[in-house]
Amino acid sequence: MSISAVKLDALPMRVARREFTRSRLCAAAREVFFVKGYGAATLEDIAQAAGTRRSTLYNHFRDKNDLLAEIAEDYLAKVKLEVARLRGPKPSRGEIDTWIQQFARFVVAERTPTILVVHGSAEREVPQALLAFGVRLIEAFADQLSAFAAALRPDGEGRLALVRARVVLRELGYALCTHVEEEGGGLTPEMLTVAGELFERFVSEQV
Amino acid sequence: MSISAVKLDALPMRVARREFTRSRLCAAAREVFFVKGYGAATLEDIAQAAGTRRSTLYNHFRDKNDLLAEIAEDYLAKVKLEVARLRGPKPSRGEIDTWIQQFARFVVAERTPTILVVHGSAEREVPQALLAFGVRLIEAFADQLSAFAAALRPDGEGRLALVRARVVLRELGYALCTHVEEEGGGLTPEMLTVAGELFERFVSEQV
Repeated sequence: MSISAVKLDALPMRVARREFTRSRLCAAAREVFFVKGYGAATLEDIAQAAGTRRSTLYNHFRDKNDLLAEIAEDYLAKVKLEVARLRGPKPSRGEIDTWIQQFARFVVAERTPTILVVHGSAEREVPQALLAFGVRLIEAFADQLSAFAAALRPDGEGRLALVRARVVLRELGYALCTHVEEEGGGLTPEMLTVAGELFERFVSEQV
Repeated sequence: MSISAVKLDALPMRVARREFTRSRLCAAAREVFFVKGYGAATLEDIAQAAGTRRSTLYNHFRDKNDLLAEIAEDYLAKVKLEVARLRGPKPSRGEIDTWIQQFARFVVAERTPTILVVHGSAEREVPQALLAFGVRLIEAFADQLSAFAAALRPDGEGRLALVRARVVLRELGYALCTHVEEEGGGLTPEMLTVAGELFERFVSEQV
């Protein structure tokens, strides 16, 4: 390898290091948010968990919401792959139930961000990053299913569809979180069934 | 009044003072839980807000959950009066919508406990007192509406009905909280409509 080639490689290495630090900070933030709760977590906690200083953290992220936005973004990319498994424009109840079972397995593998996103979205003051996640999740479903596409129309019927879509996804999120936390008091299968029921109703009835 | 009569009155006065202290502690706890969140609030905070010491608080309540249970109990008594306005066994959609509008006015007057109960019930670890509240709320509806009575049956269909009942009440709770916090981003009327839709479906379809 020539000396100039080594020099040309220097920049990508710096970029790679930067990416490494960012993702390490995100992983630390994910754990801290999960354990302490988003509201109670501090940037100091996160820097400490990542084994660095707060000043380093500030080189990468403005604030907690900025970290949460990146966590949610990473999670959304994975969720989209799951959403893409669902055949549009109007999947049957059987297809929906099968898909929810697959999604439940995905959620077990992605326990931390799932719980962060679902419970964070139910808080009294929903972090900006999660409001944005909610919108983009509906857009992901809209690429596939006409009922969710209807929820993006700016008219009166679209607003109703948007509220219905949120109910469907919120209740699916709860059922999946209960599944992953094994805290349904024996009602987890019923929760997944009812989530499927709501989903099917929405995709079949929404014009 | 004879001296013996005065002595006989002494006990009720002590009881009355005790009740006064208890309700003052509850009111303080309600405010502290509301402002700081149930998880973050301490008994020290509550004693301070009530203008007393922690030792006095311990004369009346074992812990935070005990305080929350009394707050929820007081709130439940009021909610039951609202629930009783809904004609059973199967109210029409119109009756449900009218009832939700009345309930929305009630919730504006009872803003603090409503938000405490609804958001507290959506937390990752739901306080014991709110789990109990959820059960008793379904029992209150069951006194009136056959669909909710079905949710108390211990068989498979009963378990599904219970999960559906919880969805209906959770979504109604969210819609009402959004209404009272005026944070629906313009979607509050649609949220109340969809809550009515879910409620009507449950009471009309559940056997």
